[in-house]
Amino acid sequence: MTTQELADAFTALLKAGKFEDAGHAYWSDDIVSMEPMPGDMAMIKGRKAVDAKGAWWYANHEIHSVKVEGPYVHGQQFVIRFTMDVTPKDGARMVMDEMGVYTVQGDKIVEERFFFGS
Amino acid sequence: MTTQELADAFTALLKAGKFEDAGHAYWSDDIVSMEPMPGDMAMIKGRKAVDAKGAWWYANHEIHSVKVEGPYVHGQQFVIRFTMDVTPKDGARMVMDEMGVYTVQGDKIVEERFFFGS
Repeated sequence: MTTQELADAFTALLKAGKFEDAGHAYWSDDIVSMEPMPGDMAMIKGRKAVDAKGAWWYANHEIHSVKVEGPYVHGQQFVIRFTMDVTPKDGARMVMDEMGVYTVQGDKIVEERFFFGS
Repeated sequence: MTTQELADAFTALLKAGKFEDAGHAYWSDDIVSMEPMPGDMAMIKGRKAVDAKGAWWYANHEIHSVKVEGPYVHGQQFVIRFTMDVTPKDGARMVMDEMGVYTVQGDKIVEERFFFGS
């Protein structure tokens, strides 16, 4: 599978709202997930921990809509843009605008790195 | 200078249409510029060569408009989205939708890597 093919298939699942299915299908068991903030979420390693991070996120945010743009491909990496209208638990509704940069090895995503717009 | 500060200043120049000024101000002398295609443009090294690549590009494309979105920051990297309405010399007018992922070291951009949407 080329990076383009994997990126297209992964992004199609995201565009269909199947975020958990996308991860389950294409994450490596050794997936590393990196967020641009200090603390516990800065770097999460392994499918189980990344699954738990996702479960925490879905439990703590009400998602009103998500716009997924991409993929944008270069070599073994691709970029997806997410524009999310969400209300965090105990927080105010907001639009999150972020980029995910994904690195592929052996037909699996081994790293996802998120970048926040300001 | 933090990555956010450099990214903000670099992006502000791009949003003002000052593409060459942005490069001159923030590229490292050892800048590496990578495009997602095989051939001579795949990897260009050094400010002089990257300048020449830019000059070639501007000479061979008529730019009708450029939309610059970002920056999106994570650690020493940031992402900018470019949506360009251009007509290549001897080609048909088209919209190019691409992402640039920039890597910063010592207050300079040492790598720019472009990702194409499809």
